[in-house]
Amino acid sequence: MRLVSFRRSDGTASFGLIEGDRIKDCGAALAGRYADLRAVLAADALPELAAAKGPVLAMDAVEMLSPVPNPDKILCIGLNYLSHIKETGREKPKYPSIFTRYPSSVLGHEARLIRPRASEKFDYEGELAVIIGKPGRHIPEAEAWDHIAGYACFNDGSIRDYQVHTSQFWPGKSFDDTGSMGPWIVTPDEIADIGAARLETRVNGQKVQDTLINDLAITIPEIIAYCSTVTRLLPGDIIATGTPGGVGRFREPPLYLKAGDVCEVEIAGVGLLRNGVIDEA
Amino acid sequence: MRLVSFRRSDGTASFGLIEGDRIKDCGAALAGRYADLRAVLAADALPELAAAKGPVLAMDAVEMLSPVPNPDKILCIGLNYLSHIKETGREKPKYPSIFTRYPSSVLGHEARLIRPRASEKFDYEGELAVIIGKPGRHIPEAEAWDHIAGYACFNDGSIRDYQVHTSQFWPGKSFDDTGSMGPWIVTPDEIADIGAARLETRVNGQKVQDTLINDLAITIPEIIAYCSTVTRLLPGDIIATGTPGGVGRFREPPLYLKAGDVCEVEIAGVGLLRNGVIDEA
Repeated sequence: MRLVSFRRSDGTASFGLIEGDRIKDCGAALAGRYADLRAVLAADALPELAAAKGPVLAMDAVEMLSPVPNPDKILCIGLNYLSHIKETGREKPKYPSIFTRYPSSVLGHEARLIRPRASEKFDYEGELAVIIGKPGRHIPEAEAWDHIAGYACFNDGSIRDYQVHTSQFWPGKSFDDTGSMGPWIVTPDEIADIGAARLETRVNGQKVQDTLINDLAITIPEIIAYCSTVTRLLPGDIIATGTPGGVGRFREPPLYLKAGDVCEVEIAGVGLLRNGVIDEA
Repeated sequence: MRLVSFRRSDGTASFGLIEGDRIKDCGAALAGRYADLRAVLAADALPELAAAKGPVLAMDAVEMLSPVPNPDKILCIGLNYLSHIKETGREKPKYPSIFTRYPSSVLGHEARLIRPRASEKFDYEGELAVIIGKPGRHIPEAEAWDHIAGYACFNDGSIRDYQVHTSQFWPGKSFDDTGSMGPWIVTPDEIADIGAARLETRVNGQKVQDTLINDLAITIPEIIAYCSTVTRLLPGDIIATGTPGGVGRFREPPLYLKAGDVCEVEIAGVGLLRNGVIDEA
């Protein structure tokens, strides 16, 4: 299944499933029981999405939202591909480096990222996002896969000067409207081996990042086990698993996003997340 | 006014005001209009709390919650008192060092902090919390005070080994049930000069931290201006402004919290936040 959240042309929010190149709007039938896709995940009610009747809408008739627009947590892993670790001059890590983003910083597919007035150093970071289904604390690595509701493409857009004002990355990672997730969540049954999937990031069609998910230094089960030692993971929680080498900051010359640019994050078997860039008003 | 959130003896959550040494339960009268104290702040409706009729409860008849149990954001400033900066061997910062906590890590007054099984390095950090009332983005320093709904005591409880697993503090700062805020929010009209207030932290009655709020390296207006450059601040958002010197990690010998300990954070004119410590089950 491919799970989506979106805004209808009348401005109301809904959720549903991808059917071919269209969207089945399940919110109309299920809104009385589930406020949003997060509530569907919390109730372990994906079969109800499949069974629900609903109007079928063209993709371009709706505004795509982040598939989970209101997660409890967005945990981001820094420095997690050996290619990116190498370009920053660091050693392979023993523990995942974790910072957070707020939902106000994460848009949906085709929404326009906002380059803030405060900085000219707006950078992309293509990533695989893991979305939690079954909640849990102290999840053993061996059981981690059972807690995954699905996968999505993620752009961990970063304001590089704010990221390095101090040792803590948060200011560079939570500017409103600077990241994105989507276009949908693909459930694990549709993906034989997420590790074998290839992730590519493109800016204006030019490939700038290219990796196999298998090159993650700290694996998905290790990340889930570690995060759940700290706090209970909840349905709809998002873990952005880190970005590979090729970010704009370390290119020669640096490649920062500006108004009019188009940034794409594509993961084979997962989807293609595309966002244009505009300047902050 | 002193604003509180609490759980009644029947387990339902409510909010209200301190009257003398008792609590006026405003939730019964206002619950149809405001789900919680955050909603009251968002509606700028504090006068309705004052006017509301409601049962008056003894403090020990309720379970105190964090005054804003469900904030959109909890932003924490690291290394912000010269005394604490000195003990960590760092230089005075130019920018605030910011990390986040999740609400699941923040309890109320008299709730018991949980020392996790994963670590023996559970440390206290007494702090002043600023609670946002009026929302805003790009708030100028000169207008920052107008955006403050009030002040509270905050214990930014930290799991020190997890805090330094990598450069990012988040894992050490978001273990479930390891921090606290309260006992209430004091509105600014009750405090002539927050900078002149003295903050003290005590463990089992022994004073371990002692500072004037004025010793903040980066001031409250500077913090609000900086954070609101990154993201829109919302009513009920919490900014924990940093801890002074004297944390357990840098004492000789180190002083870590264990089951049976009692930790108090007291700020003159604001209140006294007290929490016992238990081991994770």
